[in-house]
Amino acid sequence: MTAEASQITRPDPVGPGHQVSLGETLPLKLDCGIELGPFTLAYTTYGRLNADKSNAILICHALTGDQHVANTHPITGKPGWWLTLVGPGKVIDTDRFFVICSNVLGGCIGSSGPAEIDPATGKPWGLRFPLITIRDMVNAQAMLIDHLGIRDLFAVIGGSMGGMQVLQWAASYPDRVFAALPIACAARHSAQNIAFHEVGRQAIYSDPDWRNGAYHDHGTTPAAGLAVARMAAHITYLSEAALHRKFGRNLQNREQITYGFEAEFQVESYLRHQGSTFVERFDANSYLYITRAMDYFDLAAQAGGNLAAVYQGSKTRFCVVSFTSDWLFPTSENKEIVRALNAAAANVSFVEIETDKGHDAFLLDEPEMFRTLKGFIDGCAETRGLNGIRS
Amino acid sequence: MTAEASQITRPDPVGPGHQVSLGETLPLKLDCGIELGPFTLAYTTYGRLNADKSNAILICHALTGDQHVANTHPITGKPGWWLTLVGPGKVIDTDRFFVICSNVLGGCIGSSGPAEIDPATGKPWGLRFPLITIRDMVNAQAMLIDHLGIRDLFAVIGGSMGGMQVLQWAASYPDRVFAALPIACAARHSAQNIAFHEVGRQAIYSDPDWRNGAYHDHGTTPAAGLAVARMAAHITYLSEAALHRKFGRNLQNREQITYGFEAEFQVESYLRHQGSTFVERFDANSYLYITRAMDYFDLAAQAGGNLAAVYQGSKTRFCVVSFTSDWLFPTSENKEIVRALNAAAANVSFVEIETDKGHDAFLLDEPEMFRTLKGFIDGCAETRGLNGIRS
Repeated sequence: MTAEASQITRPDPVGPGHQVSLGETLPLKLDCGIELGPFTLAYTTYGRLNADKSNAILICHALTGDQHVANTHPITGKPGWWLTLVGPGKVIDTDRFFVICSNVLGGCIGSSGPAEIDPATGKPWGLRFPLITIRDMVNAQAMLIDHLGIRDLFAVIGGSMGGMQVLQWAASYPDRVFAALPIACAARHSAQNIAFHEVGRQAIYSDPDWRNGAYHDHGTTPAAGLAVARMAAHITYLSEAALHRKFGRNLQNREQITYGFEAEFQVESYLRHQGSTFVERFDANSYLYITRAMDYFDLAAQAGGNLAAVYQGSKTRFCVVSFTSDWLFPTSENKEIVRALNAAAANVSFVEIETDKGHDAFLLDEPEMFRTLKGFIDGCAETRGLNGIRS
Repeated sequence: MTAEASQITRPDPVGPGHQVSLGETLPLKLDCGIELGPFTLAYTTYGRLNADKSNAILICHALTGDQHVANTHPITGKPGWWLTLVGPGKVIDTDRFFVICSNVLGGCIGSSGPAEIDPATGKPWGLRFPLITIRDMVNAQAMLIDHLGIRDLFAVIGGSMGGMQVLQWAASYPDRVFAALPIACAARHSAQNIAFHEVGRQAIYSDPDWRNGAYHDHGTTPAAGLAVARMAAHITYLSEAALHRKFGRNLQNREQITYGFEAEFQVESYLRHQGSTFVERFDANSYLYITRAMDYFDLAAQAGGNLAAVYQGSKTRFCVVSFTSDWLFPTSENKEIVRALNAAAANVSFVEIETDKGHDAFLLDEPEMFRTLKGFIDGCAETRGLNGIRS
């Protein structure tokens, strides 16, 4: 795929969602010190806001996710990434709740980020876009929630980087979050995870078509580098057991080894496919910015190194979920969150789900996760007086 | 570093070792069906062969290792990679044993491989070099052992890919191996490990300087791609705990985050260093060939899928060693070897070493590993009648 072709044929990433300009009067003050405004957030909503605006659930997406939670993706044509969980009668019941999901600041599916046009120059930002943090993403989302006229969120939920945003929401806006559901995440990014991100970034930097980030100006696309970054990351989303179960040492379209460098094993063919499809929907610079935001995440550092202090006095109800085979955000790191919440005397439930599907389990059909989330959400809705009320 | 500079300044990789041409009369029949000959093996020896030639120990090196086990490396100037273990009075005591280590077939430190000159054309082989397997490496080593006039090896020892060669030696030449010490390895390469190798290869393929493998002809070096491959692989050699202990979230030469894409964290700087130093001593095509050889390794497949059948009737004494924090070749995979050896009624000792250093522990100062190997080697030497005999 040439850059020209991708620029011409790429469908409108907003799809059935919306786009809003924010920060026009009061800009967003970023952690790096820069004031950003106006900026754009693209978002989707599902269900209806009730009269007293008490039934809103914000879904926060992961690194390579986006706002297309429960609708067909406008670029890939694939079903929404959390369609298993979100919809009429589902765990996040759009007959009862008003569900919002925005593409993160720094993203490439319609929100302001390095791939979008800098209003000051009329050209793509590229590396002139300021570095962002998870807290910046959350502050931008809070401006969207303001714009929608919603004071309090009934719940904020997300997995992986989405879970980091959930933790930040509950830390930054404790009185605006009734229930927080951080899934498969951590209160800080580990050295190993920073290392994997750095490998992905190096793969992008080393692609000559990256052009020091100015590839939009040159009409090139660092597709090869971005594909390698995706392949490396994708391995970390699965477990050794899942890879063994799905592929083992099975050969790809052949009876025996043919002694060459084509994709001889199914797992190679699968990885190559993951890489090549990813570059059709994602921007390489956006990948740099968002991985960097995750690297920077260290919630305790916002309170002098004491994670419990972040949540002191919080009235938010927490439901922390981890997966046994997740080695990217292992249970031990999720438990650190739980221990801090306990030390802060917060209201916290914790469930470790037994699965061999690895980190990606939060995106998959995991009945035990569904039961856990449903039980918690329904209980919170009861407490909040939302049960039985249809929007 | 430009390609020209590297070609001019690269020191003779043979160093204090030797080089021999093999297969001149009878070529090496490779697993892929091609007959290779003549071919070159570069090797080192330490200590002296005793009168009845019964004190030879063959050391097999890992993916990015080489024959410079216990001497200063001729290219990097660094100490031998197993100097902790090999030398006068050490576990592999060069006062008692005649120690041999050869650069594997397909390597780039003086043995025939894609970077070496094809005698038929007078130009580097590049991708015209035939694909090789672990068994091919071992068969080539057996020809070297023949050339040295040695019938039986007292011991064969190696870690990681070296351990695969040890397993193959004991399978292919059971009556030539008195003791076999496979460390931190597996009888077959797992789907996850094939996946990590494929990511590294894709990083190399996607470097335009790779030139479809013909970079020697073009005077280029795919240094960026090879560095990314090394960085991705290097993460798998360590453990999350080791990375956390060594680096945590420490910043590199700065007091606080500076919001940029330089190496802000120490772990990034460390990885970049691993990548850049590796390309000075390793050939990118060689990396492709050797990772492929590991991918192909599936010892049970040589006996109709029954690993125990491989070792049926073997008189070799085995010492299998694994490390608790090794997630590349976890204890579970080492135990599969042990179970097969038990099923074959072989003589096998197994030790899992408690360490947080990950896969690389086999290269490091691990007193419990030293004690384990020393006890086993000394016991075998006693049985073999080698104790008290100085060469």
